Amino acid sequence: MRVGIIGAGSIGLLFAACLSRVFNVTVYTRTSEQAAAINKNGIVLLSGSEETVSKVEALPITDWEGLEDLTIIAVKQYQLVPIIERINQFTDKPCNLLFLQNGMGHLKLLEQLKVNNLFVGSVEHGALKENLFTVRLNGLGTTNVAVFRGDSRFLFSFTAAVSRVFPMNYQEEYFTMLEKKLIANAMINPLTAILQVKNGVLVENPFYFKLFQNLFSEITTILNLRKPEEYWAQVINICKKTADNHSSMLKDLEAKRLTEVDAILGYILQEAQRQDKKSPQLEMLYYLIKGKEKQVEVLK
Amino acid sequence: MRVGIIGAGSIGLLFAACLSRVFNVTVYTRTSEQAAAINKNGIVLLSGSEETVSKVEALPITDWEGLEDLTIIAVKQYQLVPIIERINQFTDKPCNLLFLQNGMGHLKLLEQLKVNNLFVGSVEHGALKENLFTVRLNGLGTTNVAVFRGDSRFLFSFTAAVSRVFPMNYQEEYFTMLEKKLIANAMINPLTAILQVKNGVLVENPFYFKLFQNLFSEITTILNLRKPEEYWAQVINICKKTADNHSSMLKDLEAKRLTEVDAILGYILQEAQRQDKKSPQLEMLYYLIKGKEKQVEVLK
Repeated sequence: MRVGIIGAGSIGLLFAACLSRVFNVTVYTRTSEQAAAINKNGIVLLSGSEETVSKVEALPITDWEGLEDLTIIAVKQYQLVPIIERINQFTDKPCNLLFLQNGMGHLKLLEQLKVNNLFVGSVEHGALKENLFTVRLNGLGTTNVAVFRGDSRFLFSFTAAVSRVFPMNYQEEYFTMLEKKLIANAMINPLTAILQVKNGVLVENPFYFKLFQNLFSEITTILNLRKPEEYWAQVINICKKTADNHSSMLKDLEAKRLTEVDAILGYILQEAQRQDKKSPQLEMLYYLIKGKEKQVEVLK
Repeated sequence: MRVGIIGAGSIGLLFAACLSRVFNVTVYTRTSEQAAAINKNGIVLLSGSEETVSKVEALPITDWEGLEDLTIIAVKQYQLVPIIERINQFTDKPCNLLFLQNGMGHLKLLEQLKVNNLFVGSVEHGALKENLFTVRLNGLGTTNVAVFRGDSRFLFSFTAAVSRVFPMNYQEEYFTMLEKKLIANAMINPLTAILQVKNGVLVENPFYFKLFQNLFSEITTILNLRKPEEYWAQVINICKKTADNHSSMLKDLEAKRLTEVDAILGYILQEAQRQDKKSPQLEMLYYLIKGKEKQVEVLK
């Protein structure tokens, strides 16, 4: 089976390295410079003191033609638009696509795709790209995948095959799966990025914990969560399990990159607006992060 | 005329240095070490490239007996309680007291005082204590003073005498005077401390400015401001005039000190509670700062 991976950031490199153990993988990069680096060096995966090198074919994204049995799209949500356009040029071929973006804002974009089999996934690994062809796995989590539209059999057997080398769980229902991840991201990412603290501090510091409860209450109301205690337990669990990690949003700001705040808070803010509900805390977090992005941009 | 100044932080030292040009000043310090340092070196006032040294008598606070014609209390609000107790031991003598705390939470404490003439002031100078006897004046602003209880004639003539050497304005109405300062502090201090930015950034960065407007709207509702546009204009004006300054709350956190967040946000939060109004943004800021204080405390 042939697998294409669009995007060679931390998640793209991690998936390419791991999936190449069972599949024939081609990774598609934004720059030809990165494709050349991967073709020359392979993908280096660091995990603890272990280092493995995987030979993986790399091509610039402009060479993608949807020829693989499955294409995994591992770019940030704000980079999706040109990729969706490219995909729509090749929809005469049968195509299986798996989208790994954070948040839920990209679901609307997926509706535009003419492809039959669309899958979505939520990644819970801690990975950090160290250079064009090297990725460090800081925390082995799992990837949850579900059908967004189309046939489930392909995804089911793919997940079974992957699970032999890399944790991946097939989920029956995409909406709850993405919503749970979204809420965890909305709770943890902006606060850790603003406060410049590790994830664990949010539950260890009694004042941040109080703030955390207030914020969760606002999100619960906006998203009409039916069993909020389950979502709450998951958020607390993630904070504790990743206590020593820097969230992706904190890392983005540290590296002077754009964050995924629009993907993560934008969706909930739009929901609030649609239902004419107030969202003062989320708005405050949103503007704090957008302001920080602006400051970082000015510094560049 | 004899003037006592309780507290030798940045504001206490600044007032002692300036008022000693026209009055006989005694400064009362928390530690006898600081009193000794001031008696030995005088108070050094730095302003731009200028340096002036004022010979001022210093005594430990335990020596204060209310013998001066006026005592200025220049400690932080959270340090007031033991001082109020000490003052109440000496209320057999006629006593004029001027309190220079930020916020409005201390007004309740002042009601406990048996003294007749109570004045309050709000200081708009930018001053930084550099060591036990040295203070740097970063921005010459003014001090507004008003009668809280008692006779206005003393304060009026005192203000006139001071004005010859140091900007000081007599105000007719203490409540609005303190409220204006409180609102400016509530808007500027927590945000600059959380974001670690200079005051000017809050109005220059379009996202922080949007946040600023939302926050002001919440404060307006809680405090039932009748002419909000006047308060808003003042806040913006302060941000622009002190664009390059670090707010006192930012400086407190940088120096790993407690902040005045209870004095500044506590009063407005209590007002919200009393009127059963929501205060989600102020609460978020409050817990962010309290959490930061806790982090700083842990580091010490």
